[in-house]
Amino acid sequence: MVKIAVLGFGTVGSGVVEVIRTNSESISRKAGKKIDIKYILDIRDFPDSPERHLLTKNIDDILNDDEVSIVVEVMGGLDPAYTFTKRALLAGKHVVTSNKELVATHGAELLGIAKEKNINYLFEASVGGGIPIIRPLNQCLAANEITEIEGILNGTTNYILTQMIKKGKTFQNALQDAQEKGYAERNPAADVEGHDACRKIAILSSLTFGCHIDSNKIHTEGITKISLEDVEYAEAMSSVIKLLGFSKKIGDKIIARVSPMIISKEHPLAGVEDVFNAILVKGNAIGDVMFYGRGAGKLPTASAVVADIIDIVKNIDRNSRMIWSTCEEEVLIDIGETTSSYFVRVKTDNKPAVMELITKVLGDCNFISIQNPKTQDEVAFVTPEKKEKELQTALNDINNHSFVNTVYSVIRVKNE
Amino acid sequence: MVKIAVLGFGTVGSGVVEVIRTNSESISRKAGKKIDIKYILDIRDFPDSPERHLLTKNIDDILNDDEVSIVVEVMGGLDPAYTFTKRALLAGKHVVTSNKELVATHGAELLGIAKEKNINYLFEASVGGGIPIIRPLNQCLAANEITEIEGILNGTTNYILTQMIKKGKTFQNALQDAQEKGYAERNPAADVEGHDACRKIAILSSLTFGCHIDSNKIHTEGITKISLEDVEYAEAMSSVIKLLGFSKKIGDKIIARVSPMIISKEHPLAGVEDVFNAILVKGNAIGDVMFYGRGAGKLPTASAVVADIIDIVKNIDRNSRMIWSTCEEEVLIDIGETTSSYFVRVKTDNKPAVMELITKVLGDCNFISIQNPKTQDEVAFVTPEKKEKELQTALNDINNHSFVNTVYSVIRVKNE
Repeated sequence: MVKIAVLGFGTVGSGVVEVIRTNSESISRKAGKKIDIKYILDIRDFPDSPERHLLTKNIDDILNDDEVSIVVEVMGGLDPAYTFTKRALLAGKHVVTSNKELVATHGAELLGIAKEKNINYLFEASVGGGIPIIRPLNQCLAANEITEIEGILNGTTNYILTQMIKKGKTFQNALQDAQEKGYAERNPAADVEGHDACRKIAILSSLTFGCHIDSNKIHTEGITKISLEDVEYAEAMSSVIKLLGFSKKIGDKIIARVSPMIISKEHPLAGVEDVFNAILVKGNAIGDVMFYGRGAGKLPTASAVVADIIDIVKNIDRNSRMIWSTCEEEVLIDIGETTSSYFVRVKTDNKPAVMELITKVLGDCNFISIQNPKTQDEVAFVTPEKKEKELQTALNDINNHSFVNTVYSVIRVKNE
Repeated sequence: MVKIAVLGFGTVGSGVVEVIRTNSESISRKAGKKIDIKYILDIRDFPDSPERHLLTKNIDDILNDDEVSIVVEVMGGLDPAYTFTKRALLAGKHVVTSNKELVATHGAELLGIAKEKNINYLFEASVGGGIPIIRPLNQCLAANEITEIEGILNGTTNYILTQMIKKGKTFQNALQDAQEKGYAERNPAADVEGHDACRKIAILSSLTFGCHIDSNKIHTEGITKISLEDVEYAEAMSSVIKLLGFSKKIGDKIIARVSPMIISKEHPLAGVEDVFNAILVKGNAIGDVMFYGRGAGKLPTASAVVADIIDIVKNIDRNSRMIWSTCEEEVLIDIGETTSSYFVRVKTDNKPAVMELITKVLGDCNFISIQNPKTQDEVAFVTPEKKEKELQTALNDINNHSFVNTVYSVIRVKNE
């Protein structure tokens, strides 16, 4: 019998309790021992919950109880989750979490403590919800040098973009729809500005490359500026717009970013729709492998948390050797030094002059037009591969000409 | 330092050696110990191989060497792989394999020996090549009751179908193309008749449902009868034809089969093309999750084998608790008792009479036509959901009418 405590009785916490209760027989069989929930910590009261006898508001009840060997932190946020997790690990208790903010911020330190204590800090649920990705990266692909990770890491923005692409809804209408369905928060900034995806790509990058990548330093763009005309242009290029987290090893350095990308409909990530997430991993032996599923939601996320609990029960006496240290030097390549093709739109009264100027400044571009009256007074094109800082200089140059009204909708285009 | 022996120096065996050599530093770091190849067993000579000093033709060299703790069986086939594996396990050596035929046939017995000896018999590479699927099923989705597995499990047939769908090649031409590219054997029966996919769905079913599903009893159809007209009809239904392995739990019983299926282009498996494989798993907590990648090939398969080796090194003193026993009673549901919709074509000189007859015998069918002169003298339709034995009775009935020339192309249609 292994006794656990659940910190936080919100969506994920109640999901964890539900999964353990529903599948208790098969979980015990797989873990080799019965898993028993001894405490649930929450500052709120749940007088009608059948679990109310397990509730406590005092973390010390849990930390001082030697019977509790696994703490499940599903509170979210940095505080007090960080303090509780650190104290639990220092007390020799394994910790399982779904808290991406905490892992992205303090992962290196918390994994270090776990290693020192020969226990585990596991966080499968922090990326991709229920999709197995942390364990596959750490175990199944262990024979590979991982060279690149690219994924749709946020279900809310993917739902919004799918509504724009498939239903022709504007960003605002699609966002409102997502809010009504409960896919987006009332304050949707963390999702639509890309911060949530950024934390996830920071975790994946740190884990893959073995040292802590600071999420605050990762170049992050959201989808708030994407218009229906951009979507239409992408369609004209047999492509779709997706918000992608991206991380690639170049020698000892790393490129990491979150941004909207125009990708061909032939790309495996292009068909990932609605709230689904998918993560494409490139390894030097395996080639491309993709993991697909629901990136959020009560039961999928709880499913990943409980898998971590089972893993710990099976390996209660040992550290899983999942580790990232502090980077010795800055490994992130400055975004200005990275290259891409870009889709750009320029508003103008003099198209021939703009096209001539663009070709002169940016080289051989691929001009695109769509049958939409709103785009009558503009020139749209895809540039050749350029360093971002060179693109910016060129666009500033173009913007300074009198026959150019404004340059907008700069979206990276994936060529491979 | 952990010493291993590789049985079989063919494509996969040489890939395993290559991956261990190429990624040796990161593999040692992840495993926590250096992995050293002490023997390679093969009946052939490799006088020019840099590994020739490791070669032996005598299995006893390996089984009698106490330094060897892991045996990697990548010979394929039942004999002598079965004897060697059994002897290795009985000698207390962990075994890793890519041999789907052996796992599908003797998995229950070999896993039983491994459990008894507190060692491991791991076979990630036996299904889906490099795609992580066995470990995710066993670990990452351990919190779930798995209710259904469905997948494109054979790259050769998926390549052939993709060529038929995308390039309009006939089955014969596409097969020849696959043979020229090295994707299909000179004798392609194991692939195109569905036997390879059958072994894989047998392994996945046995593992998920916890008891041995005999691959010989699984209803298996290949793709040799699929014509370009069938592909065109599927296109008219906004669908594609894929060879799918399928396994579903119904109470205490299981439906398992391998067959071509007509699936909507919206389905996640529809976009899986060329030699890629993908496996869609339904769990009661996680919902749908899909694993995608290269299902075969030297390095992807070797990648999965080496991941199993690393896992064993990390857990050298314990059994992974992956187990399937012998089924106490027949759990496979007779194919005649399972239900589906079916796509059927009937050759006739009297279409109105046939359509009337079909509606009478099969109920409200969905009639389909395509602009292809070859299909002028036929009626094509999709039936409502029917038990297979009822469908057969109905089709025999239809075939007995004088105005019906022949009934052909009976392909299951996936409705959900």
